[in-house]
This record gives sequence, C-alpha cells and structure tokens, in this order.
Amino acid sequence: MSDAAKQRTARPKREPAAPAADLQRFVNAGRLAAGTAPDALAALGLAQHDVAFLCQLLEEGKSPTARDVREAAEGARAAVARAVGRMAAVLSLARPRQADITPLDVREVIGAALFDLEARLAGFSLSAELGTAPLAMAERGGLLQTLASLLLDAADNSPPRGRIAVTLQTLDGHLVVAIEDEGPAPLSPESLPDREGTPLWLCRNVARSFGGELAVSQGNRGGRRVTLRLRSGR
Amino acid sequence: MSDAAKQRTARPKREPAAPAADLQRFVNAGRLAAGTAPDALAALGLAQHDVAFLCQLLEEGKSPTARDVREAAEGARAAVARAVGRMAAVLSLARPRQADITPLDVREVIGAALFDLEARLAGFSLSAELGTAPLAMAERGGLLQTLASLLLDAADNSPPRGRIAVTLQTLDGHLVVAIEDEGPAPLSPESLPDREGTPLWLCRNVARSFGGELAVSQGNRGGRRVTLRLRSGR
Repeated sequence: MSDAAKQRTARPKREPAAPAADLQRFVNAGRLAAGTAPDALAALGLAQHDVAFLCQLLEEGKSPTARDVREAAEGARAAVARAVGRMAAVLSLARPRQADITPLDVREVIGAALFDLEARLAGFSLSAELGTAPLAMAERGGLLQTLASLLLDAADNSPPRGRIAVTLQTLDGHLVVAIEDEGPAPLSPESLPDREGTPLWLCRNVARSFGGELAVSQGNRGGRRVTLRLRSGR
Repeated sequence: MSDAAKQRTARPKREPAAPAADLQRFVNAGRLAAGTAPDALAALGLAQHDVAFLCQLLEEGKSPTARDVREAAEGARAAVARAVGRMAAVLSLARPRQADITPLDVREVIGAALFDLEARLAGFSLSAELGTAPLAMAERGGLLQTLASLLLDAADNSPPRGRIAVTLQTLDGHLVVAIEDEGPAPLSPESLPDREGTPLWLCRNVARSFGGELAVSQGNRGGRRVTLRLRSGR
C-alpha cells in the first residue's frame, strides 16, 4: 500500500450517526410537513379546481376560449409549483447527510435551514443578525437539523406575526447562535432540554455529538432564548 | 353540584400526552413523507408537464385541439390527485389525537394504520390475519402511531416486494399484534427497543404509557418479529 493510500485509510473513521440524529431529521420533516401541508393541499385544491374546469368544458363539448384555458392552466401551474416547493423542503429535511465533523461556515448553514423552512416561517417577522465569524467545528447535517428544530420550536411558540430573532456571535473563542421568540413565558418543563423525548432534548443530544452545547433561558422578547455554542474551527 | 355533574368531573383526568407520543407522530409523518414524497413529486412533475404543454400551445397562439387539451387536463387531474393522497396521509399521521385510554377494536386501528401507509406499503406483499378478538384497553392515537411506526420499520427493513405479515391473536387473556418482515438477520442493536432514540424505543415508551408491552425476536421469515401485547378491555 502506498503512503498516500495509507493516509487515506488512516483518516478518522466516520462515526455512524447517532440514533438521535436519524430521529431528529424525521421529526423535523414531520413537523415541517404538518406546518406546510395544509397550504400545499390548498394549492393543490386550486389546481384541481382549475383542471376540473378544463375537463368539464371539454366533456360538455364546448370549445374553450383561449382566455379560459390560459387562465385555468396558468392557475394550475402556479398552484402545483407552490405544492412542489413545500414538498421538496420536507424531503430536503428528511434526507440523511454525511456525518463528518469539519470546519463550517455557520452563516451558510443558518441560511440553508432558513431556506428549507421558508414556507413555515413566512407568517413571522424574522430577523437574522449574522456578524462575521470564524469557521466552527461541527457536523453539517446535525447542525442544519438542530437549527431547523430550534426554528420550528420558535415558530410553534410564537404568536401570529411574532418576531423570531437569529443571531450569530463570537464569544470567548466559541461561536454562539441564539434563537429567540416571543412565545409564552415562563418556561414550561417541556421547553427545557432535560425533558426526555422532546425536540429540544434531541437537539442537545445531536449538538453534543459534534462538540456543541445547548442552553435555554428566558429571553428579552418575552419568550424563550436558546443558545447553541460551537467550537471554533481555527 | 348534582350527582351527575360530580360523576362527570370524577372521570379519570386526561393525562397530558407523553413527549414520546408527540415525537412519534412527527417521526412517523416525516418517515412517511420521506418514503412517499418522491412519488408525489414525480406525479406533480407530470402535472407540471401537462399544464406547461397547455400553456405553451396557448402562448404560441395555436388553437389546441380538444383531444390534446383533454388528455393533458386528464393527466394533470390524475397526477394532482395522486399527490394529494400522499400528502393527506402524511398530515393524518402528523395530527395530534385525543389521548384517553378506552376499550378499542384493534382491527379497526390496524386498518387505519394500513390506510395511512397505503402508498408506502404498495411495493410489498402484505398479509393481515386478524382473527376475531375482544376489545383492548389502549389509547387510540398512541396505538395507531405505534402500529404505523412498526409498519414503517418493516417497510424499511424489507427487500423490494418482500413479505410483511400482520397478525392479531388472543393469548393468555392479552391481545397480541405481531408484525414480521423478511429484513436482514441477525438483529442489529439498532433494531432492539433498548437503543435509546430509535423509533422502536419510542414505540415501547408510548406502548407502556397505555399499558402495552413490546418484544422483539428473530422471526420465521428471516427478519424481525415485533409483538405488541395489549391488555384486554373486558
């Protein structure tokens, strides 16, 4: 075996993803599906209506005018595209990702989580203050899912049009992501990571698997503030 | 307070659903979404194709023949209906259900789980031998989700077109549901309910919350056999 080949095989072996990580991606996908499927089904209902209108015109032997057909077809096209977007995001959250711990640009991963949850977060006032920050050591799939889970929690806890704030800071050599909502105070036992079997408990398990840590406190916006501390990749 | 009113308030108080139950319904919804979304997206792709074809004909100023329009519209209608069915099943699994422990017809609950998972189980050879059985004491939502989780496990473990067998028997005054697949043997640690954070571990937590018990063994079909024992409701 060549030295180069030895070096390749000597690379740290990929740990099998913790069961918590598998559970977390399905929980996230299920929560997102539950939060966006009604909207997707409503869109498909519109598509069905438009298409049925076309079918009916034809069954009645009427020659549809170009304008009728165009409007119905365009309506159906937009509605189907809306449903596809929602379903694709669910599928994106559900799929397994590689579980290597590598230096990561946390802003990019926050952006990816916000992208997948776009439809779910549409009804809230979202602010993201992501200062420049060094790379963090983390496992991209687990970090993405943990952020997605915390954002889903924030959406579930928030009143309609409530504010959800995401910040990224460097503190004592660590990167700290904070997610804050206006949800009900005081904190219930279910909202703390010690409560076995909750999404937040899963988050803590997954975060610890790549060297991160999670803390929960009462925030300044009247709701919960969850901070995720990550090791710097420098 | 009247005696009747007292009797009403004296009814056993509804326990808040265990966190495991919430997690389980989202995990099930996410797993079903992951298993059926590709098919639903393919169907929506066909719908988009048909509708785009209609739009194109109109943009080009051509007068579509009735046959072209009819075929494209019928194609889109069938495809959208297919996607709606898959999304509705995901939503059905994701929604919370009342958590009272009551006497239940287990065959009806097995039927409901099979209905929600119809699209996911379509590629397998499914047999259900459900003899007559007394009512069982269980919590319908938790039982439904536990059965759905075990069936999703069986589908994930099975080779294409593999056999999945569901049986219901009465044994020593208990009702026993067994789900067996042809999945890989021997049993991996992940396939046992002791492995914290796995779907089967969630199933055991939820089953115990309504007085059931779960056991796993090597089955006669080369795969895993999971039995769920329920208290008789008599």
